[in-house]
Amino acid sequence: MSKKPKSSALHETDGVSSQSEITNASSIKRIQDKRKAKLVTKTLVTEILNGSITALSRAITLVESSNPKHLQQANDVIKLCLPHANKSIRIGITGVPGVGKSTFIEAFGLHLTSIGKKVAVLAVDPSSSLSKGSILGDKTRMEDLVKSENAFIRPSASGTSLGGVARKTRESIILCEAAGFDSIIIETVGVGQSETAVHSMVDFFLLLKIAGAGDELQGIKRGIIEMADAIAINKADGENLKAAKLAKVEFNRALHLYPQKDSEWQPKVSLCSALHREGIDELWLLISEYIEHTKANNYFEEHRREQNKFWLLQTIEDRLKSDFFNQPEIKVALKTQLHLIEEGKTTPFVAAEYLLRLND
Amino acid sequence: MSKKPKSSALHETDGVSSQSEITNASSIKRIQDKRKAKLVTKTLVTEILNGSITALSRAITLVESSNPKHLQQANDVIKLCLPHANKSIRIGITGVPGVGKSTFIEAFGLHLTSIGKKVAVLAVDPSSSLSKGSILGDKTRMEDLVKSENAFIRPSASGTSLGGVARKTRESIILCEAAGFDSIIIETVGVGQSETAVHSMVDFFLLLKIAGAGDELQGIKRGIIEMADAIAINKADGENLKAAKLAKVEFNRALHLYPQKDSEWQPKVSLCSALHREGIDELWLLISEYIEHTKANNYFEEHRREQNKFWLLQTIEDRLKSDFFNQPEIKVALKTQLHLIEEGKTTPFVAAEYLLRLND
Repeated sequence: MSKKPKSSALHETDGVSSQSEITNASSIKRIQDKRKAKLVTKTLVTEILNGSITALSRAITLVESSNPKHLQQANDVIKLCLPHANKSIRIGITGVPGVGKSTFIEAFGLHLTSIGKKVAVLAVDPSSSLSKGSILGDKTRMEDLVKSENAFIRPSASGTSLGGVARKTRESIILCEAAGFDSIIIETVGVGQSETAVHSMVDFFLLLKIAGAGDELQGIKRGIIEMADAIAINKADGENLKAAKLAKVEFNRALHLYPQKDSEWQPKVSLCSALHREGIDELWLLISEYIEHTKANNYFEEHRREQNKFWLLQTIEDRLKSDFFNQPEIKVALKTQLHLIEEGKTTPFVAAEYLLRLND
Repeated sequence: MSKKPKSSALHETDGVSSQSEITNASSIKRIQDKRKAKLVTKTLVTEILNGSITALSRAITLVESSNPKHLQQANDVIKLCLPHANKSIRIGITGVPGVGKSTFIEAFGLHLTSIGKKVAVLAVDPSSSLSKGSILGDKTRMEDLVKSENAFIRPSASGTSLGGVARKTRESIILCEAAGFDSIIIETVGVGQSETAVHSMVDFFLLLKIAGAGDELQGIKRGIIEMADAIAINKADGENLKAAKLAKVEFNRALHLYPQKDSEWQPKVSLCSALHREGIDELWLLISEYIEHTKANNYFEEHRREQNKFWLLQTIEDRLKSDFFNQPEIKVALKTQLHLIEEGKTTPFVAAEYLLRLND
């Protein structure tokens, strides 16, 4: 009755083979798969550490995948990359559409490569997907930067949950760093909650502005000004220059009214014209000054530690909340309780007790 | 074998009585207790609705109690008071120590009573306790207001958790409103997280300032300026007047740089001298203007609804988090994972997965 083990566990309904043979076949397959995966992971990491863009792209694709098998492999790759990460400067850039973000990032990125840096550009944009045309999806907007050997541009991971997109971007940072990129730029649009997420994963946060008519901060979400380590007023050229200079004075005055930051850094305002590639080098000097300042007072390292802690707690909180509120019973009861609150028949606290007891 | 039922279930170990007799005795007692409690609750509510300060104080004491029996009674009282609540104006006042909050609240409260209002003053100060001398604990600071028949002053509930203190204050607001107070002032010190909590329970948020030397916003936590519907610069008298006027210009300029509020209200800056009782009436006019503005554009009601929703969700989130993080196993594992993150041996996301799996 001896039979060769089947090569795939998928055939187990075929008929005559005994249970133990199938078990043997499938466990052999599992062991083989594991070994193979381990080898693939190891090769991938070696290639990433050698600076292979292809390997880096493949690893980021794993990170972005929703397949649980890929998730496991992604975690393994990241784990092996971690000791080689953390050596870059991470710069967050935000600004409303129309402010010239793509042109700015191209000019800024090219300046960095021209002084010998390796630049990776990532994005956090939960609403984007490749098909809908994400901010970085259309690489033709950064024609020159995309051609550079020392630049790597990756569109935002797709997804509707900010937490998910942020996680993917944050893990991609580690992979880019392991691949030798020493300057990581994270782009986001200055609407919604994404800039808070980006602020929590970068060392330096830059707000891009243009001198507008009237209200200078129009369209910018509350709180973003407070996050900024610098405000760059773009399109400071031609007829715009005068208005841009005025805006600089206004912003400088406003920034001085804010309480001191934990970094003990006084946020600065600078002018630039990304189109004419003016003011970009000054901005880089400003960022270098910030890095020097925060490394000297230990804020740089302390801040990264705090960010890690923040992401750990945030991930847990997000999951606890979604586990609770996604229960069908809770969904229905929540609706009822909100209705009762609205009608003044219960208080938020009594309603909360009621919902929590349903969960016990 | 007939015996009189025991008057208290506490005697059930006394000896010879049969199980059924004890059960009868204790259930009779329970029913009697329930009836009695119902009567007490009803009487208390009637007295509150009649404006009895004694009854109001007793009800707030129930709300502040940590005894589960009191909690049940407090919830019953609040439920019966709810239809009579919500008709006041709720004003939050914050400012760092030294800004003259007590003097200001006394002057402001007296102005309100002088124009026929009934004023309740509550506080949110998680760090305070009566013994340590809370901001409002020492009523002698508001000598004149405390004497007024139309004023009710209650120190902050004690407690170390902001969530707990905030809840107690928020439920006390309902009781004060049911007792006929049409102006509720909630005081908090402008440090820590308490002003965010207060901001989430009031209609109008006032930041009290004095013209300082140099940095005008010194000592004020980030974000508070953005919350303010008005900034009152106190101690604008004598030699201070010139500096106060200058500060007013500065703040007005800064406030105009902020994005528009959802209320479509442009925050204003005013001068006052609480000591000389000057500028208080103007401030009240300003608040009245705000109320009129937000009632006209429906923000007032919408905002209160949002606040209720916020407190419902916040209470649930707080509990989910504390239930998770207070588990001894999680506490130990969290420490280990944080250590691994710090050493670059894991990422925040992988660590979070690990901790969440422990909880399953």
